[in-house]
Amino acid sequence: MRNRRILGKPQYIAYHASMRRLIYSVGISLDGYIARKNGEIDFLFMPKNFSMQPFLESIDTIIAGRKTYEHGVKMGFGLRSTPQTRVLVCSRSAKSGVRDGVEFTRLSPAALLRKLSKTEGKNIWLMGGGDLANAYLKADLVDEIHLGVLPVLLGSGLPAFPGKFPDRQFILTECKSYDRGMVNLNYKRER
Amino acid sequence: MRNRRILGKPQYIAYHASMRRLIYSVGISLDGYIARKNGEIDFLFMPKNFSMQPFLESIDTIIAGRKTYEHGVKMGFGLRSTPQTRVLVCSRSAKSGVRDGVEFTRLSPAALLRKLSKTEGKNIWLMGGGDLANAYLKADLVDEIHLGVLPVLLGSGLPAFPGKFPDRQFILTECKSYDRGMVNLNYKRER
Repeated sequence: MRNRRILGKPQYIAYHASMRRLIYSVGISLDGYIARKNGEIDFLFMPKNFSMQPFLESIDTIIAGRKTYEHGVKMGFGLRSTPQTRVLVCSRSAKSGVRDGVEFTRLSPAALLRKLSKTEGKNIWLMGGGDLANAYLKADLVDEIHLGVLPVLLGSGLPAFPGKFPDRQFILTECKSYDRGMVNLNYKRER
Repeated sequence: MRNRRILGKPQYIAYHASMRRLIYSVGISLDGYIARKNGEIDFLFMPKNFSMQPFLESIDTIIAGRKTYEHGVKMGFGLRSTPQTRVLVCSRSAKSGVRDGVEFTRLSPAALLRKLSKTEGKNIWLMGGGDLANAYLKADLVDEIHLGVLPVLLGSGLPAFPGKFPDRQFILTECKSYDRGMVNLNYKRER
């Protein structure tokens, strides 16, 4: 129960820090790739009848890997923190600190989440890439997985789930198809 | 149009040899594995409100790889040809011919399908495993993909799509969720 109505105060929405959920939300090909080997994501499309808006309004923090961030910059759609959304870029090699409109951090997944959970806020979008998502999955820190499945086999690319961790059971919370055959599957971690 | 009503003969269903469709139908984990590394498929389940029957009635031939076949035998649910369904086991090493209730073949995917398409019949189930499916995908011989997606990350295993082939566009034909969070996704090749 994330948004609670407090009796007698129907307008009041309580965000409890411990309730911030980490959501790995990503578009993937039928064969489970988030991008081609070279980082290209030309196969992704946004169906006319699908909107990211409700999801974007549910988060206030984005966690992205350094490679994902740098590829975005190269492609001209670089991530930047806004008053609504804080962008954290995880890197083991880059110096920590705020620059170029984002915050670089060298914290481990567990340490970063521990820090974030001390502050109240909305949900946190684990944007990827696969290696970063994998570190969070390995540490079992992912509360939800949202997959936009595109109707194409790429044959090769960067996997959404590079793997090497034990079983993780999830519960399907949404299954819906959209224009041009995109399927949206949402899951929450069964704990 | 596979089952055609001939005008004036509504009971007559024509199966044209060239209309036999090759369907890769397989259960997969959220991270795209058809089995664990050791071949175990303990994570698969059959939702109470889902039935394989309509699919099984739409096929009369099963193509399986040797390892998939042998694993089934070891697990005690070995494949066998029946009067309704012919089982073909593909192997580059085993001797061709009928034995143990199945037909071993060393034919390439293209050659086997050419042979099958010369006879009239129902659709053909490409059962897997991943390596065999991949040979058919590489040769672009797969007409449909049916995925039963289970709500679990395995972290490692045998991939449904081991890859190394060019893009293949598909069209979503079914998207439905079943008990315990199994999602059935059917696709047909866009040609």
